[in-house]
Amino acid sequence: MNDNAWIRTVALKPPSLQDNTADADRLVEALKPELETSRIDIELSLLRQLPRLLRRWNYHVRCVSVRDAGRWRLLDVIGLSESRPIAGLAVDLGTSRVALRLIDLVDGKTLGEGAFDNPQLSVGADILARIHHCEGKGGLERLNRLIIDGINRHLAGLCRSVNLDPRDVFLIAAAGNTAMTHLLLGLNPRWIIREPYIPVVNRPGLLAAGDLGLEAHERARILVFPNIGSYFGGDLIAGILYAGMHAARETAILVDVGTNAEVVLGNANWLIACAGAAGPALEGGVTRMGMMAGPGVIDRVQIVSGDGRLRIHTIADQAPIGICGSGLIDLAAQLFLGGMVDIRGKLVPDACGHRLKQIDGIDNFVVVPASESAGGTDLAISQADLDSLIRSKAAMYTILETITSTVGVSLNGLDPFYVAGTFGSFIDPASAITIGMLPDLPLDRYRSIGNSSLGGAAMALTQADGLDRIDAIRQRITYLELNVNQDFMNRFSAAKFLPHTDLNRFASVKLAAG
Amino acid sequence: MNDNAWIRTVALKPPSLQDNTADADRLVEALKPELETSRIDIELSLLRQLPRLLRRWNYHVRCVSVRDAGRWRLLDVIGLSESRPIAGLAVDLGTSRVALRLIDLVDGKTLGEGAFDNPQLSVGADILARIHHCEGKGGLERLNRLIIDGINRHLAGLCRSVNLDPRDVFLIAAAGNTAMTHLLLGLNPRWIIREPYIPVVNRPGLLAAGDLGLEAHERARILVFPNIGSYFGGDLIAGILYAGMHAARETAILVDVGTNAEVVLGNANWLIACAGAAGPALEGGVTRMGMMAGPGVIDRVQIVSGDGRLRIHTIADQAPIGICGSGLIDLAAQLFLGGMVDIRGKLVPDACGHRLKQIDGIDNFVVVPASESAGGTDLAISQADLDSLIRSKAAMYTILETITSTVGVSLNGLDPFYVAGTFGSFIDPASAITIGMLPDLPLDRYRSIGNSSLGGAAMALTQADGLDRIDAIRQRITYLELNVNQDFMNRFSAAKFLPHTDLNRFASVKLAAG
Repeated sequence: MNDNAWIRTVALKPPSLQDNTADADRLVEALKPELETSRIDIELSLLRQLPRLLRRWNYHVRCVSVRDAGRWRLLDVIGLSESRPIAGLAVDLGTSRVALRLIDLVDGKTLGEGAFDNPQLSVGADILARIHHCEGKGGLERLNRLIIDGINRHLAGLCRSVNLDPRDVFLIAAAGNTAMTHLLLGLNPRWIIREPYIPVVNRPGLLAAGDLGLEAHERARILVFPNIGSYFGGDLIAGILYAGMHAARETAILVDVGTNAEVVLGNANWLIACAGAAGPALEGGVTRMGMMAGPGVIDRVQIVSGDGRLRIHTIADQAPIGICGSGLIDLAAQLFLGGMVDIRGKLVPDACGHRLKQIDGIDNFVVVPASESAGGTDLAISQADLDSLIRSKAAMYTILETITSTVGVSLNGLDPFYVAGTFGSFIDPASAITIGMLPDLPLDRYRSIGNSSLGGAAMALTQADGLDRIDAIRQRITYLELNVNQDFMNRFSAAKFLPHTDLNRFASVKLAAG
Repeated sequence: MNDNAWIRTVALKPPSLQDNTADADRLVEALKPELETSRIDIELSLLRQLPRLLRRWNYHVRCVSVRDAGRWRLLDVIGLSESRPIAGLAVDLGTSRVALRLIDLVDGKTLGEGAFDNPQLSVGADILARIHHCEGKGGLERLNRLIIDGINRHLAGLCRSVNLDPRDVFLIAAAGNTAMTHLLLGLNPRWIIREPYIPVVNRPGLLAAGDLGLEAHERARILVFPNIGSYFGGDLIAGILYAGMHAARETAILVDVGTNAEVVLGNANWLIACAGAAGPALEGGVTRMGMMAGPGVIDRVQIVSGDGRLRIHTIADQAPIGICGSGLIDLAAQLFLGGMVDIRGKLVPDACGHRLKQIDGIDNFVVVPASESAGGTDLAISQADLDSLIRSKAAMYTILETITSTVGVSLNGLDPFYVAGTFGSFIDPASAITIGMLPDLPLDRYRSIGNSSLGGAAMALTQADGLDRIDAIRQRITYLELNVNQDFMNRFSAAKFLPHTDLNRFASVKLAAG
């Protein structure tokens, strides 16, 4: 029966004629020194239950409270004999996938985890389509209901699976990009995408979960991660918290790659961030065979040296149906190392041999012949797909080069180099280096940290000063607007080669064709 | 377009690419220096409207906020061209009558006033009966609904009469005794009347009016006056605030007389309070002809010197139907001065003459003969009624003597002497002195301050630091438990004479019978 950030056990002196302080005030006075605060609020709904609860448990109770800018809010009092967990819920509000993690607020342990496709996909695949949908009558309300209902449904299911009740969830922490955060809160995202790109709120803070329609404990609070602007959201701030960059002496870098490449560079003294369009090639959906990771999707590609045959790996080892970002990077790296793609990213007919096919007048490289694919048709990537990948990787590298040079840090000096996101966790850094997407660092400096947004949200659940830390991180970040000027274009042009025009930067990349 | 405690006009710098702070954060940053605070909260329901409101009024708005323990809460933003008043509502939650006063929060002026019988009277005339009613199933909810619905209904009517909408009411301040406050908040009063007499809460603070079911502005807050214990409620604290005793150099006294006599003594340095049963005689309802003030009720009685005839005055000059507390005190004083009642409070048959009648073996004094009364029957007070009045006046005087002697202040040194309450405003101090209910002070020291509970509540509406002041008053008060010991009983016995056994204390009272 340990106490932690939010939980305190107090034994009150029962009322007497000598001390006839009211129930609520008696409890508050006993809690104040425990929570080291001068102010504790109790909501009316709890006040109404308090006399019964205190007497039922003989004035000896566990108090669940949350901290909000210096003052505390008492959420509930619970008998010592009650055995139900006091739970928290971390939410990563992805545009495509939403991830949930239930944790025990006492010991921070994970009680259960789950993820589901963002139900807003039914309205629009990308965030822009959803924002436009909000212009229509009832559009915002519809998108808001979809995400709230989705979380409620999956939270209920997750709770059931671990023998909990959603009412055991006292605190929720949610991190998402700025637009997703708006849709969660029912805030109009209209102005996010229009110059000068203004969110409704940067720091939503701690809200009543019930006000959002979330079904948890009746007085549950939700900590909504702040954003820095329309293009740098709470998911990134959660990532920084999770990676611990804001508290580290070394200068580290955190890269979250999706449709946007979001990059944070810094240490305990400073943090600089930028975001730029990295192109859609990395997320799947653009190459004809590209797709999100899932069963049957090719995520690893290797050329067996000697005969030039491809060894592919699919998720869940099922018959191949397409390729995801990490597979595409592997493939491009292998083709380049095997001489089947040249330094400009073009397919080399002689080297590709029978794997080269012309479709609609465009060169295609057959990754999986029709006979071996799940759908019975060739799985191929076209020269256009490769061009798109190369633009994406060039954008990524250029962003990294720009942000580091802006603060005078050498790309090669970065340690550690955090790669975040589901996608990041599948990338093979060696392949990414081979095509010049990531800098040529010793591989052990790359740390794949998975869903850092979810990780940061979970972390905030167990820290009494979580919101303060998060606000402090937010305050510390300098946001670098990426000006697409001549410098940027020059860097981008150089980065459009494999791995780069300046081969000295990629000494580890050994070309087969020399 | 003046600003005041709660209202600030701000002209924001509109968003630009150079300053793309979110709408909410832009507004908060502009308001912080205005309100001299580091923390302003905005509720989700307002966040949802904010982008539209700010753009509609071109970032130039009036902000209505309330202060709650150092932090502020923004309730609404309003265009400068909007002409509706920004209103507040003061509520005196009387056990019998509820009084409402609408005020303009900008200039503090009264917009309208009203009062209504407490709808809980249908359940129980006194607070004890209501508390017992709460033991039954649904009893608390019923009493809570009665008072909430009553306020909503009368607020709506009051608003209509002054061309307002309840949604124009942003702040409510309510003061009542501890039990009434509990019933307003839906808190179980069960433990208030059971040893050791524990309220649910001493300091309810600032709550969302909507959480109570009050129909005002959707984000209106209600400031609920704190209590000191089960027998010293927020109405008294409001009275102290209204009288200004907590800020005055002179030692003043405040007396609120009802079924309970509630007394506060003190100055800017200290405050001491006590409450005791003064007996029901003073409030009407106990003497057979006694009643609450109302049309036809005798409120003034005078004996025309010489012929001993009574000159009576009734409220609204209607035919007499009964007598209220102030009339009874006048009557007793006149009978005593005319020799028709002796020093022990007994009717003197020889002096009363034909006005004396025996009813059920008890002496009765006919105030209005059947021929002149509204009901066609004699209006008489019995010896038992007089005895009851004398016990009440003796209790009152004893309480005054006890509290002053406890702190070593002379009864005769009190200045000013505030008499509060509807009842207080009708008492003729000269009559009250004559019967020895109030001390023999120069009459100009008596200040009838009317409904000081309502006055204090109205005052709190226009002071940004109202809740802090109120809490400071509460902190400062020492509550004196009235021990009914030998000292008290000796004082009480001496005070049961007219005006007192010690005539030196009442030098101004000139007896006709010498």
